Order: sequence, then C-alpha cells, then structure tokens
Amino acid sequence: MSRIGRMRLGARRRQAGAAAQAVGVDALLVTHLPDVRWLCGFTGSNAALVLVNRPRTRGVPRAVLFTDGRYTTQAMAEAAGVRVAISVKPAAVAACEWMAEAGVRRCGFDRTQTTVAALDGLRAAVPGRRRRGMFVALEPLVAKLREVKDAGEIEKMRAAAALGCRLFERMLGYMQPGMTEMAVAAELEHAARLGGAERMSFATIVASGERSALPHGHATSAKLPRRGFCTMDFGVVVDGYCSDMTRTVHFGRAREREREVYDAVLEAQQAGVAAVRAGAATHEVDEAARSVLRAAGLVEWFTHSTGHGVGLEIHEGPRLARRPADAVKPPVETLKPGMVVTIEPGVYIPGSFGVRIEDTVVVTRAGCEILTPSTKAWVEM
Amino acid sequence: MSRIGRMRLGARRRQAGAAAQAVGVDALLVTHLPDVRWLCGFTGSNAALVLVNRPRTRGVPRAVLFTDGRYTTQAMAEAAGVRVAISVKPAAVAACEWMAEAGVRRCGFDRTQTTVAALDGLRAAVPGRRRRGMFVALEPLVAKLREVKDAGEIEKMRAAAALGCRLFERMLGYMQPGMTEMAVAAELEHAARLGGAERMSFATIVASGERSALPHGHATSAKLPRRGFCTMDFGVVVDGYCSDMTRTVHFGRAREREREVYDAVLEAQQAGVAAVRAGAATHEVDEAARSVLRAAGLVEWFTHSTGHGVGLEIHEGPRLARRPADAVKPPVETLKPGMVVTIEPGVYIPGSFGVRIEDTVVVTRAGCEILTPSTKAWVEM
Repeated sequence: MSRIGRMRLGARRRQAGAAAQAVGVDALLVTHLPDVRWLCGFTGSNAALVLVNRPRTRGVPRAVLFTDGRYTTQAMAEAAGVRVAISVKPAAVAACEWMAEAGVRRCGFDRTQTTVAALDGLRAAVPGRRRRGMFVALEPLVAKLREVKDAGEIEKMRAAAALGCRLFERMLGYMQPGMTEMAVAAELEHAARLGGAERMSFATIVASGERSALPHGHATSAKLPRRGFCTMDFGVVVDGYCSDMTRTVHFGRAREREREVYDAVLEAQQAGVAAVRAGAATHEVDEAARSVLRAAGLVEWFTHSTGHGVGLEIHEGPRLARRPADAVKPPVETLKPGMVVTIEPGVYIPGSFGVRIEDTVVVTRAGCEILTPSTKAWVEM
Repeated sequence: MSRIGRMRLGARRRQAGAAAQAVGVDALLVTHLPDVRWLCGFTGSNAALVLVNRPRTRGVPRAVLFTDGRYTTQAMAEAAGVRVAISVKPAAVAACEWMAEAGVRRCGFDRTQTTVAALDGLRAAVPGRRRRGMFVALEPLVAKLREVKDAGEIEKMRAAAALGCRLFERMLGYMQPGMTEMAVAAELEHAARLGGAERMSFATIVASGERSALPHGHATSAKLPRRGFCTMDFGVVVDGYCSDMTRTVHFGRAREREREVYDAVLEAQQAGVAAVRAGAATHEVDEAARSVLRAAGLVEWFTHSTGHGVGLEIHEGPRLARRPADAVKPPVETLKPGMVVTIEPGVYIPGSFGVRIEDTVVVTRAGCEILTPSTKAWVEM
C-alpha cells in the first residue's frame, strides 16, 4: 500500500475513534465487512476489527484485525499498520476475548449489523464480572462516516461509473429485437469483466416489454420486443467501489403515452439532479423529482424513493426519500460535499410498461458532478 | 406456478408451522430472503412472511407476505396461495402491526437473522401491553428445514452443477499461460450466462501461481503462469439454486512437491466423499479428509473446514468441520438423505502454491451422488 493510502486509512481510524469517544465508549467492535475494509483495507470474508482509544496514540486508535487461517497472507498484505490476529474461533468472539484481556470497559457495536445471536456470542466471550455494561448498542458510526467520500474514493467511483457508461454505449450497438434479456446481460457482464470490473454491483436488470413495469426485473429468457421499452439497470465494482446507472431505451415506434411517460420521468430525474447540492435536505431532493411526476398525474406509479448513497456497498446512506408522516419525525438529513448518491425516479404501469432513468452524482458545494454522463435523451432503436 | 409447485410450498409451510408449534410459538416471522422464497416462492429483495398456526387450517399455517409497492405485480405472480400485503413501512414492521391486530401472542423470530436494531423495530410496532413476551428468539428453524432438499430442488441443483461442469471443461480448452485471471473469469462468466445462469453463486475465484496459496483469491490482473498451479472455484445460480465446484490445474511440468501435494489433496477429497452417507456425523466427514492430510504432514496448511451445505444460498448448513474442543460440546450433527454438501479440502503454502479440489454431493442412504463429476485427475496444461 502507498504511503498516501496508509495515511488515509489512519485518518479514517482517527475519525472513527473520535466518533466512538463522542458516544462514550472506549472501543469499537467493527464486524460489517465494508466498514472493516474502509478502516484497514482488508477485503476478506471473515473479519472483526477492534479500535481502542488510547491516550498515548495521539488520536489514532489502536487497531487489531481478527480473522482466520485462510486469510493469514492476505491480511498481512492488505491491512498494513494494523496488528493481525488469526483465530479458529469466530472473529468477533476472538476480538471480545482480546478486549476483555486488554481491559476494555465499554465497547460499542453497530446495532444494525449485529444479530441477536451474535450479541449473545459477544457477551458469552467475556467473563461474567466484566460483561455487565460492556457492550453498547450504537447507531452505525462507521457507515455514517463512509457516506462522505474522500478524493481517492471519488476517483475510484469515477472510474467505475465511466466503465458503466462505456458498457451502456456498447449495448446500444448490440441490442436487437428478438435477443433474450439474458443474452444482453451476458454481453454486458462479459465486457464489464474485460473492462476491469471485479464483479457486478448487483444482479443485472434487463427488463423489456411488459417486464419493464417490474422495477427489479432481472434478466430472463424473455425476448427484446419489436416495439416497446427495455430498461437496463446495472453496476460494476472497480477497486471495491460500486457504480450504478439505469437507462431505458425504446424499440420501434413509440406510442404517444410511452413518450409522455418517458419525458415526464426524464424531467423528474433532471429536477432531482438539479436539487442536489451541499446543504439540501434529502427529502427535498426526493420531492423535487416526485413533484414533477405528481404534476404529470403519474406519481402513484412512482413506487420507490428517489435515490440512495453508493460506495463500497451498492446501497448506503443517505436515503433520498419522503419524510415519514409519523408523529415523531426523524431529524432532517442534509447532503454533504463528497456524498455520492443516485437519482433514479421511475414510473411503472403494471401489465403495460415502465421507465426508469438513473444517474450517480457526487455532491459538491454548488451542486453536483454527474458520474454517469451517458445520454438520457430518447433513444429509439 | 404448477400445481405440484404449489403443493410443495404448502408442504414446506406445514413443516415450518409444525416446527414453530414444537417450540411453543403460535406464529413465525420470516425475514431472511432465502427462507421467504423457500416458503412461498417470492424472490423480491424486500419481504417479511408471517406464518400463523390456526386450528382451522388443517396444519397449513395462514401465510401473509409483506413487501413494498415495487413488488406488487411480482409478489402476486410468485407467491401463489399466499395473501400479499403492500406497505410503505418496513416489511417486518408492517408484519408485526398486522400480527398485533390478528391477536398473535407469541411470535418466533430467527435470532441469527435479526439484528438488535430490527428487533427494537419489531417491538416498537406492537402496542405496549401486547409487546411483553411476544417476540421469542429462536434458532434458525426454516434454514434447518431447508438443509434437506426435496426432489424438485435436487433436480435444480443437478442442472446448476451440470452447467458448472460444462463451464470447467470449456475453460480447459481456453486457458493459456499469459492470459489474465480476469480474462479467464470473464470467459467463464459469459459462458455461464449464455448457458442459463441467473448470476454467479459468488465472486469467481481464479488464483494462479503463488496466488493459488490464497484460498479466496478472486480473479485479478495477474497472469496465468508458464509453470504453476491455477485454482478455479466458481458457481452458477440456476432457478435460484447455487452450484459450487473447485478444480486446480497445472501449467507446464510440475515440480515433485507440487505433484505430491496435489495427490494428497485429491486423496483427502476422495476420502471425504467416501465418508458421506446418511447417518454419518458431520465431523467424521471432516476427519476423513483431514486425517489424510495429517498423515501426509500437510494438515497445518489445511486452514478451513471440509465443506458446507449448498442450496438457495452458497453457504448453508450443515457445516462439515472439526468438533469444537470446548468444554461444552454441541450435539453431534448427522447427515440426512437429501442434504447437499461440498467436500473441499485444500492445502495452501504461503508464498509458494496451493491446491483445492471440491465437489458438491447429495447425501443418500448408502452414500452420495456426486453432482460435479468433472475430472479430478491431474491436468497438465
């Protein structure tokens, strides 16, 4: 790992340590794998990372990574500057035993990533007299920090998104009526691999004809229509970071209604993008897109939220959604520079057709940078 | 869905209802998506299924599927015979509100699939006076039932595994020294898609040369060596069911040590397969493979367990591993006819090379059926 890479990871651990201190715990147990990767660089499938705040370490918490024997070589190479401990026990259990030995008194864990069974396991790993009050359920601290991307992360996301755009443009020259959705997905994913993708961000969506009305219509053996829509929603992972984009194209001559819906979704999508800037409330961005569809009489068919964060995971915070109508409203969330979010309104008319258009954008002070600049204009194949 | 398909799902819900009754709850809240799919056929990404035991329904529990507006059409089509409820609230929260209304008193949930935060959400969805004692943490009931596959499931797994074997054989004719691991993965995954795979079971492992010593070495830009091993571990998903197989081939003339290790791993793998039969203890199968590597002086490099169940998930129960040496030993688990497990010993010598060989097999009364019959003999490319 480069010196800059090491410094960035150190800075992240310092941030996490400060966040832990702010909520009154002296250690953090991190078991969510994207969080582990973000804090120390380790990419294995079994890991628990402990951060312990110590006065002597000048704000950088002591870090120990627990994993198993399959990952000895990989952990040493990837998690530079972090102590690696190999154990045959579950990684989190080994971590708790170590913390008990090391005299940790209050250890925070992520309540959204720790199962009831796992918590029982953590408690059982600590001697009875220490257990009381040791484990503190926290809101996701590290995932929250991960929402704001640093320059290195944005560079990786730019590369992933650029590959996504090249793939979409390639597919424009490849798709033909009568071809199966799966053949389209196969070609797209093959080109993705050859273009440097580690894997797809999620199961590729190719939803054509009536199936375009399924917001999550994964590619099937259905054939692309002579006349009708085809929605492609896909992403690639480059250097651990996900891209995400959706385009909807039309085969043959469009019916008037199809064109109207497309234009309304495009307008809504553009309104959503235009509403993005540092300081904007997440629900305002949602409303910017939603209100266009409301005015067009289509809002009842817009059955999901406007967008979500993207990064090491395909779905991260913040969520760009309506504010819940509950009596007790959650605090308003606002966008920060460096957040990377999708803007993806859609209209789905069951049994008929659907349209979705999605970009991924980086929040800036004045607005946003669109990472997925492929054309959104009406495409008639 | 076919009549037989519906009957199978009904039979599964009856099994789950009986398991719930046996542990003293009158309802089950199922939120783990493979469990939901197995019980009602729904494949969407957001779901909570409630099963309520009722005297009037002749052993088949009442079933209600909660999901959101993106899945209205899909849920109606896939979850035949189950009531579908669409909600803007989190599916599990909507399910709990419904249960409270319906008078459910004790609802079991899977402690290994429910986070601390999710459990708080379930509790908050139920009025205070009902909440007390309503939610009962259970070991995974449905995942346990899923370990034993029915005839229809085994047929699907046979198809997935057969596609896997065809892919491996295709790769034998494709791989060349100097080609990148990623190019190999790209070709394999493309052929998988064209062969009918919905997606890969997991990130394809192509680990060549020194990288073969990484048990989980995902394909990188490293080049296949002129002389050395290449391990391929991959799986495809067909009709929801995963395949899983590993083969290790050698480029160029082998060193004596390489050949010795290969032969020992193959012998261990065959010993593992030979130990599989209904009634065998899972740790005995592990020991059958492990003892061969112990005798060969290689056991310290066999750093994982011998195998795991496969099905709708790539990793399911049962685990074929050593018995923990703890004071309180867990009960011995034995294999049952219809379980589908992998047998995959490996030896990994850091900085040098590694070998893993893996089959997926169906447990039968007398032994097992190997679903992945591709050659395991020494292949020199």
